[in-house]
Amino acid sequence: MKLLNGKKIAQEILGNLKKEIKKKNLKLKLVVVLVGDDQVSKIFVKQKEIACRKVGIKFSLLKLPNKTSFPILKKEIERTNKNPDVSGAIVQLPLPKHLREKDQEILNIILQDKDVDILSEKNLGKFYTGNLSVLPPVVGAILHLLNSYKISVKSKDILLVGAGRLVGFPLAIWLLKQKATVSIINEFTEDAYNFLKKSDIIISGVGKPNLINGSMVKKGVIIIDAGTSLKQGKLIGDVDFKSVAKKAKFITPVPGGVGPLTVACLLENLVKLNQNAK
Amino acid sequence: MKLLNGKKIAQEILGNLKKEIKKKNLKLKLVVVLVGDDQVSKIFVKQKEIACRKVGIKFSLLKLPNKTSFPILKKEIERTNKNPDVSGAIVQLPLPKHLREKDQEILNIILQDKDVDILSEKNLGKFYTGNLSVLPPVVGAILHLLNSYKISVKSKDILLVGAGRLVGFPLAIWLLKQKATVSIINEFTEDAYNFLKKSDIIISGVGKPNLINGSMVKKGVIIIDAGTSLKQGKLIGDVDFKSVAKKAKFITPVPGGVGPLTVACLLENLVKLNQNAK
Repeated sequence: MKLLNGKKIAQEILGNLKKEIKKKNLKLKLVVVLVGDDQVSKIFVKQKEIACRKVGIKFSLLKLPNKTSFPILKKEIERTNKNPDVSGAIVQLPLPKHLREKDQEILNIILQDKDVDILSEKNLGKFYTGNLSVLPPVVGAILHLLNSYKISVKSKDILLVGAGRLVGFPLAIWLLKQKATVSIINEFTEDAYNFLKKSDIIISGVGKPNLINGSMVKKGVIIIDAGTSLKQGKLIGDVDFKSVAKKAKFITPVPGGVGPLTVACLLENLVKLNQNAK
Repeated sequence: MKLLNGKKIAQEILGNLKKEIKKKNLKLKLVVVLVGDDQVSKIFVKQKEIACRKVGIKFSLLKLPNKTSFPILKKEIERTNKNPDVSGAIVQLPLPKHLREKDQEILNIILQDKDVDILSEKNLGKFYTGNLSVLPPVVGAILHLLNSYKISVKSKDILLVGAGRLVGFPLAIWLLKQKATVSIINEFTEDAYNFLKKSDIIISGVGKPNLINGSMVKKGVIIIDAGTSLKQGKLIGDVDFKSVAKKAKFITPVPGGVGPLTVACLLENLVKLNQNAK
């Protein structure tokens, strides 16, 4: 078993970004809009802040109360759009329940060039057709993992567990563009066990602890755990690491796997989209 | 074995569109831009023309020579954009080789409201997020087939053979939104046979005659053939109908299956997007 050390790769990426920002003297700023008090969101926002400080990107947290209305949120995002100092803006998901029905509308407000999370319809349309110069951060993270450990996706049986907006869905699209053989299962899949058992690469993004254990996978499987849930204040993934590690050829730890790489790719997007921010 | 009679459903749809157009007194016009002499394209264009005449939509074919340059084609599309009489415009694919590299750029020129084929990035972004009021025509066609024969996709194992722009790719996205369990195979898939053999529903959109025969599928399978190739001047699908029909519960014929339904859905999009064209 070999660990897919996302944290290490993330540090390399951040190191390179730091050099690039310094060399090109880029003046960059990330704004994170956080509505409400979601505990997992707070952890993620903190990670983004730390990464920004590390590479020399200004970080600004716009914290709005849980009861913030759609018009107020819209106005705040429009303000960051107009602010020439802001190079990238993200709305931390999930939004509070009363805003969730309009969340795509909210994400669409972010200017295309500042939408470093790639969640606006305009950017997703370009991603769909393969004409976007950057990738959704989780996709970028997994691409870095695969490249760093020389794992090819072509002609492998790849299984995505879950097809959510942030992990499974964009990954499915990207993998199809790479001519990978992809299966996507969800909570309604009746023979999930058969899919798990035969797959060469399993990428999970559900958010249910211990969803996948060692008895479900084949020997030599490659496991990428992009799920997140909170257990006693700590982030944990979808995979029972201990039992799966015994059978896997490669496996990501949680924390220290996909998470820090996703943050690094977010900042990579910010830098790529702002090469002239002097 | 029961035939999935796309032609019959298409006629019902066209009949309903005809009534709606008459009742609302809609003045509609479809422009098809055809560059070059592709034989399959000519057949498809003819089918669209016939369907338009049937329901009372004006049809205009803009035939451009094979050597048409990008700027000329762009100018022609922009002219249809500006023409208030044009309710929908499509660029017939495939384009000649010298334009193929820019084909997404060309499709993006079509105004969002006139893009009845749903191939511009703006419309695809909305389709990606599930916020589009219409569907790509092939997706609409298959939705009609499934609904008409009361075939549910939830918790079925669905296989897409091929992930091309017009069939497999948009279908994958739509099926994921329906919470279906989907696998997508392509020419690089090593165990294609296993996928074919275990799937409940197989949708093929490759364009290779006899790609799928009866020995490859399980008894009771549902087969939707959305592939097209030309053989001695006639359109044929990907499926060896004779041998597969012996095992299938439902099967589409070619011609008379997905094809006419796709044309009907194209016109359905045109009508939906132009409810005020008086």
